[in-house]
Amino acid sequence: MSRIAYVNGRYVPHAQAAVHIEDRGYQFADGVYEVCEIWGGKIVDAPRHLDRLDRSLRELRIRQPMARAALLFVLKQVARRNLVRNGLVYLQVTRGVARRDHVFPAADVPPTVVVTAKSTNPAAGDAQAEAGIAVVSYTENRWPRVDIKTVALLPNVLAKQYARENGAKEAWYVDDNGFVTEGGSTNAWIVTRDGVLVTRPAETGILRGVTRSVVLDLVVREGLAFEERPFSLEEAKTAREAFVTAASTLVMPVVRIDDTPVGNGHPGSVAGQLRRAFHTASHLEDI
Amino acid sequence: MSRIAYVNGRYVPHAQAAVHIEDRGYQFADGVYEVCEIWGGKIVDAPRHLDRLDRSLRELRIRQPMARAALLFVLKQVARRNLVRNGLVYLQVTRGVARRDHVFPAADVPPTVVVTAKSTNPAAGDAQAEAGIAVVSYTENRWPRVDIKTVALLPNVLAKQYARENGAKEAWYVDDNGFVTEGGSTNAWIVTRDGVLVTRPAETGILRGVTRSVVLDLVVREGLAFEERPFSLEEAKTAREAFVTAASTLVMPVVRIDDTPVGNGHPGSVAGQLRRAFHTASHLEDI
Repeated sequence: MSRIAYVNGRYVPHAQAAVHIEDRGYQFADGVYEVCEIWGGKIVDAPRHLDRLDRSLRELRIRQPMARAALLFVLKQVARRNLVRNGLVYLQVTRGVARRDHVFPAADVPPTVVVTAKSTNPAAGDAQAEAGIAVVSYTENRWPRVDIKTVALLPNVLAKQYARENGAKEAWYVDDNGFVTEGGSTNAWIVTRDGVLVTRPAETGILRGVTRSVVLDLVVREGLAFEERPFSLEEAKTAREAFVTAASTLVMPVVRIDDTPVGNGHPGSVAGQLRRAFHTASHLEDI
Repeated sequence: MSRIAYVNGRYVPHAQAAVHIEDRGYQFADGVYEVCEIWGGKIVDAPRHLDRLDRSLRELRIRQPMARAALLFVLKQVARRNLVRNGLVYLQVTRGVARRDHVFPAADVPPTVVVTAKSTNPAAGDAQAEAGIAVVSYTENRWPRVDIKTVALLPNVLAKQYARENGAKEAWYVDDNGFVTEGGSTNAWIVTRDGVLVTRPAETGILRGVTRSVVLDLVVREGLAFEERPFSLEEAKTAREAFVTAASTLVMPVVRIDDTPVGNGHPGSVAGQLRRAFHTASHLEDI
């Protein structure tokens, strides 16, 4: 079966799916995106993803490309047409196509909408979670508006490439004060020696991860102790557990930070508990 | 006549010129670019632009897409095929097309090369220079690697849009120490009350503009007093003259910074002299 993508109102073969060379996403990184999990034939947390998309578009003053119901329909359609039961659906909205000029184009230039979907193997993710991942620290070097989910991801690309070349799956950004902000494409969490879950508040310096928000709901429901506060790299290295969250990894235990094993060097029980329970707290909707 | 663009080895009608939706330039801003002036049927300062392109690619470890002579040939061809005698040729190179994943794709993924050209009206630029432009100050909020000419330009888009909405043509980034770094798409210069030209050193915090380098050559040749050092926004507001440089604007006088007229509020004589003499110092080559 050949893959299908959605581009500006049309479902097209993935191999031929294209955007104009003067799309502002291509020339200026002038666009935003979302990645939703598809789990057992259901789209996960679509309302929160679409809320965040709305916010990203509003912050950049990019027009809403279409009504929310229509956009959700397209996300589901692309997953269905690609026979994705477990995987990811990717949505990108840019400020559209215009003669190259930094300033915004005329208000009637329509945004570009691209949606793709791919299958992933849940067993592979679970096996990875059984082993845990390594992370490496990386000096925070992104602009301050990381609260907007833009496609200006080159700094993240370089951070994650650095991680790969240093035997890790993720890079943890560390700010000027020695605090971990977030990962290159994940939010960062620890469980202290006292058993308290800690993650950085989403007010500044990080993206408000949808998976992070769902895990917070779960933490409350399960009655686990938690604090939203910054934590330092040093605190993380001496924590009982550490893990990352994202739609693409769910709850993924961290077993090494730089050269330091976390806890006993094996995935922690709290991370395991949250991973197993994750979809009981998420919003599920048939595709 | 319909416009022609170059995309990955083919000259195609501009309207149909497209890149794949999984081009890393589109999903990750994982690419670099150059803009060269075409002046009287000649390409201006191509060797310096291609040197800088080499450096940008090297810094990001993107493969050279083709030999320099071939790339120069394409730049000239695109200008010729679009009958551009005066205008701009735009070159973008990205890390190519690959299934979405932050880390670099396999080494054999070819970079994407896109070249476009457009005519501009030199008389309009000269008229603008006769009037001068206004700039507004803007808090520096870009990542530290602005020395690489990447397409991750969203911060610049927002800065230049802010300028437009505040009656200006350019935004001048001001760093934590109150020093001007550069404009949203130009380098920044002043002439002090003592007649000394000042521009920030290109070691940190700015892009090493090709036009800036040529103007420095010209300044030396003309025997003008100059210093490469940071200058503050306050110093700029009390300067005798100010101007910006870029391939797209050449030397463009600044007559207002925020609400403060620069000098007597009219374009300065040094900027005018440098603008008129610019092409005597630049490298010119028939297209």
